[in-house]
Amino acid sequence: MIGAGNVAAFLASSLHAAGHCIEMVYSRTAGNAEKLGKLLNSRYTCNTDDIRAAQGIQIAAIPDEALIKFSEKGLFGKGMILHTAGSIPMSILSGCSSEYGVLYPLQTLTAGRNLREYGVPFCIEAGDEASLERIRDLASSVSDTVYELDSESRMMLHLAAVFASNFTNHMYVLAGKIAARAGVPFEILHPLVMETAKKASESSPAMVQTGPAARNDMIIIKKHLDLLSFSPELKHLYRLISDSIIEAKAENSDSSSD
Amino acid sequence: MIGAGNVAAFLASSLHAAGHCIEMVYSRTAGNAEKLGKLLNSRYTCNTDDIRAAQGIQIAAIPDEALIKFSEKGLFGKGMILHTAGSIPMSILSGCSSEYGVLYPLQTLTAGRNLREYGVPFCIEAGDEASLERIRDLASSVSDTVYELDSESRMMLHLAAVFASNFTNHMYVLAGKIAARAGVPFEILHPLVMETAKKASESSPAMVQTGPAARNDMIIIKKHLDLLSFSPELKHLYRLISDSIIEAKAENSDSSSD
Repeated sequence: MIGAGNVAAFLASSLHAAGHCIEMVYSRTAGNAEKLGKLLNSRYTCNTDDIRAAQGIQIAAIPDEALIKFSEKGLFGKGMILHTAGSIPMSILSGCSSEYGVLYPLQTLTAGRNLREYGVPFCIEAGDEASLERIRDLASSVSDTVYELDSESRMMLHLAAVFASNFTNHMYVLAGKIAARAGVPFEILHPLVMETAKKASESSPAMVQTGPAARNDMIIIKKHLDLLSFSPELKHLYRLISDSIIEAKAENSDSSSD
Repeated sequence: MIGAGNVAAFLASSLHAAGHCIEMVYSRTAGNAEKLGKLLNSRYTCNTDDIRAAQGIQIAAIPDEALIKFSEKGLFGKGMILHTAGSIPMSILSGCSSEYGVLYPLQTLTAGRNLREYGVPFCIEAGDEASLERIRDLASSVSDTVYELDSESRMMLHLAAVFASNFTNHMYVLAGKIAARAGVPFEILHPLVMETAKKASESSPAMVQTGPAARNDMIIIKKHLDLLSFSPELKHLYRLISDSIIEAKAENSDSSSD
């Protein structure tokens, strides 16, 4: 396992729990390598020479810039090389080994969280059929949901995930800020946040949209813009997202009346 | 119960299940009144004269414009009058009865959904102490979470709820559109959507933010903007929300290093 961050720790622990042996953990930072290595009963190192001596499957779960550096400098060992990045094409590994591919976990990974409840879908890709089979076996051993996806589609899906997760989470951040102005803690919004996510996951998000923009309720929208006069930035975002909802509703009713 | 839409149906069913008797259901549309009335073993009507003859607690769960019309035309009966609107001040009811207040369910309500899993917090307000007690009893009989909130704070909280729910849901809509361009159904994003909501609800959304904007990763942000060239609207939204995340991160690290 090359890396000891959130993605590396999640993958290594999942593979370990599924009965795979993690031979070695590498991290640039000795302390991180040691911590994850001890957890998995693995050797650990912060020396790239140890990677070059490796022979098994090497999973590079490291930041994009580090991955590019590893590929360019030929720091990988022999055997199959996988990366885990959403937006880096698989081809970056083509000069590093005859067996290579991608193992991309489509989930927001934070240390210490138990991910069993909702699971982690994997998107896989490989340089040849035999590698694809090995990667599929690996992914299937830790997840029920494995999609084969080429680099371009994976990059587009990564972008979709930014909307579904990072941007969504930012809406929570902004909601918390606004709730604070009402003297109310973010906690009061938890049931709303969970029900909104669940409803969208059990139906189609476009079909269950509610609220002033979906109703094209200009009186409330105007009131909300007035309430946001404390922040030109929030006001601008409110207007833009509301316009986008109104437009999406119009598209949706156009297509459903076809 | 005045109204037979999603909010009215939810409130009436919850109160009914908690042992309250719903004497009458009114809806402008006879069919809707009948449907909900039969479900609750209540009388049903589409004649406002029947409301004027009423004496018990009247809950107006109707659109904002209808609520304004009911108040102005004095269409309510005797007894306590409550409205359920997030952005209408309680004072609109002050001329309608000596007992009045607000019972605002802070949840996204869609017909047919079971809301027991996450629950529904209520925000209440009343014209006097005695009414407040009665409203608190009513709300507590169907929810574990009851907040007392004045009209101005409730309006601000309603705005926060728009960010936490409507805008969030719209991010899912956009994510689904983008995923479709990758040839992948929205379903693949369900675990991400649920985990993002849960993580934000178990921690603080600002603390768990991940993704390119939170890392200030300009290379990926630039790549994503390129991928969005098919839609100037999405590109603009991406840029604006990313800027807002970068700014929030900066504020957050400022305050945490204080």
